[in-house]
Amino acid sequence: MTEFELIKRYFDFAAPHQEEIALGLGDDCALLQLAADEQLAVSTDSLVCGVHFPENAPPFLLGQRSLAVAASDLAAVGASPLAFTLALTLPEACEDWLREFSRGLKQMAGYCGLALIGGDTCRGPLHLCLTVFGSVPQGQALKRSGARAGDLLCVGGHLGDTGGGLALLQKAPAPTNSAADYLLSRYWTPMPQLALGQWLRGKASAAMDISDGLLADCAHLAEASGVCALINEPLLPLSEALLEHFGDKAAMDYALCAGDDYVLLFSLPPEQLSRLQQAFSHVCVIGHIQEGSGVVLLDSNGQPRQAPQSGWQHFR
Amino acid sequence: MTEFELIKRYFDFAAPHQEEIALGLGDDCALLQLAADEQLAVSTDSLVCGVHFPENAPPFLLGQRSLAVAASDLAAVGASPLAFTLALTLPEACEDWLREFSRGLKQMAGYCGLALIGGDTCRGPLHLCLTVFGSVPQGQALKRSGARAGDLLCVGGHLGDTGGGLALLQKAPAPTNSAADYLLSRYWTPMPQLALGQWLRGKASAAMDISDGLLADCAHLAEASGVCALINEPLLPLSEALLEHFGDKAAMDYALCAGDDYVLLFSLPPEQLSRLQQAFSHVCVIGHIQEGSGVVLLDSNGQPRQAPQSGWQHFR
Repeated sequence: MTEFELIKRYFDFAAPHQEEIALGLGDDCALLQLAADEQLAVSTDSLVCGVHFPENAPPFLLGQRSLAVAASDLAAVGASPLAFTLALTLPEACEDWLREFSRGLKQMAGYCGLALIGGDTCRGPLHLCLTVFGSVPQGQALKRSGARAGDLLCVGGHLGDTGGGLALLQKAPAPTNSAADYLLSRYWTPMPQLALGQWLRGKASAAMDISDGLLADCAHLAEASGVCALINEPLLPLSEALLEHFGDKAAMDYALCAGDDYVLLFSLPPEQLSRLQQAFSHVCVIGHIQEGSGVVLLDSNGQPRQAPQSGWQHFR
Repeated sequence: MTEFELIKRYFDFAAPHQEEIALGLGDDCALLQLAADEQLAVSTDSLVCGVHFPENAPPFLLGQRSLAVAASDLAAVGASPLAFTLALTLPEACEDWLREFSRGLKQMAGYCGLALIGGDTCRGPLHLCLTVFGSVPQGQALKRSGARAGDLLCVGGHLGDTGGGLALLQKAPAPTNSAADYLLSRYWTPMPQLALGQWLRGKASAAMDISDGLLADCAHLAEASGVCALINEPLLPLSEALLEHFGDKAAMDYALCAGDDYVLLFSLPPEQLSRLQQAFSHVCVIGHIQEGSGVVLLDSNGQPRQAPQSGWQHFR
């Protein structure tokens, strides 16, 4: 199988957005065409074998997860998904692996509404690089800056599940029960909150997705906005599965510190809350924005507590 | 040094196209804004250590080369360069390496007029993935399809130099003389033919850049266009350095088969030639397009000859 046959067989899947995609796979560049009042949102993510996923990662799940992780950045800025490119580096062209990877990628592409418009395929240590594209009405992209004192601090859903899922994955054999299954599925198949991100356009004052962990990402949002993010620990939404499997204390640590949640974190003027919760019942208020800087964590007695060590850093 | 410090120190260089770049580094997505009648051209390239460049590649030259290779795809479609993202996977955050790599990248970014708008930095086997963005007036992008019988077949400059340069690089120690220096510099610092690509918009009937080797890429262009590409071997432009160092036969083999030339290959209605050669004196006619399919190679007697094995294939 040549590189060209490989692309044709596994990665030539149809484009859901014909209108914006003037040219897809097969030429030197793909061409995108946006409406005059739209901006293009772009984000690139690498996934490295042994760092971002285990060596024996099931290819179907890896295909789903790699695109979900990348697409979450589109959700974070409120973009409508358009397309993506995939640079796939593989030790060998194993057809079984490619078939399953392609199937998982295609499934997530369908869920997100993302067309595969280009890429590169070559031989080397397993490595994925995805670049995602979305459109956003001019000037309406959500940014990390913009949170103001008095805003509510909110998240789009349960925290810590993927951290728990990863911990389970690193045990061999992984436990099998419904709580473990749930946590593993949350690790492998995070669902980028694209609809929530689009709803928040023009309403949230700042937004991002949680990829480095709640505390670390609250610090990023607070720094970009020049404010202090105050988190009420008892308000953090923890799933029953996470609590059941790990107990209260470890569950809270996962929620605060584990990365890879891929739910949205945002600041919201209080008057927007009721409409938002009607539309998205999983959204939770976890604190508020106040003047100052950094992150303050309040325990169940309303007392500040020392935040645990937080945030993934590749080169620390 | 954390990942964030690394990005700030080495990859936060100023954007030459402020107008189109609504948001650069530091948020979840970058934002690009095109004029209403422009399309966005996008291309992704991976460069894998040990496959696309040697392990001991000098980081300054690697920085230059990696962006040049990616930008050549913008030249191929006639796009005006805008921006790029870089996903950089590194075994360790070595400051000397990063400083030199960043300096080379910045130099080529300045030459091409490309702003660094986003990326991802993580730990793992050395791997680069660059995604480049350009703009092109609606409907005017050059494509591989479109060559017609009677068109001239042209290239943007010398062929085979980079193949010769790579062969020298693989010898230890590399020869040192002015011919070798020239060939090595052509390998490390290909200059994407962006001005030529833009000139060819609305004039060339088909275009691409030579990355897999002349014969392989002529076959791609012929297939996409549904025509036959006829190459007159004596017309191929070979540099004095290549001829001097390798002799006539090997030089011709490099010109026909070695990849990585990154000069443009295009078909041109004959009436455009004189104006083109006034503007770009390095452009050469190497044959013509005729009805049929595939590639025909004519030797110095005008006789068809068997083409040598050609074209790089990652998974052959």
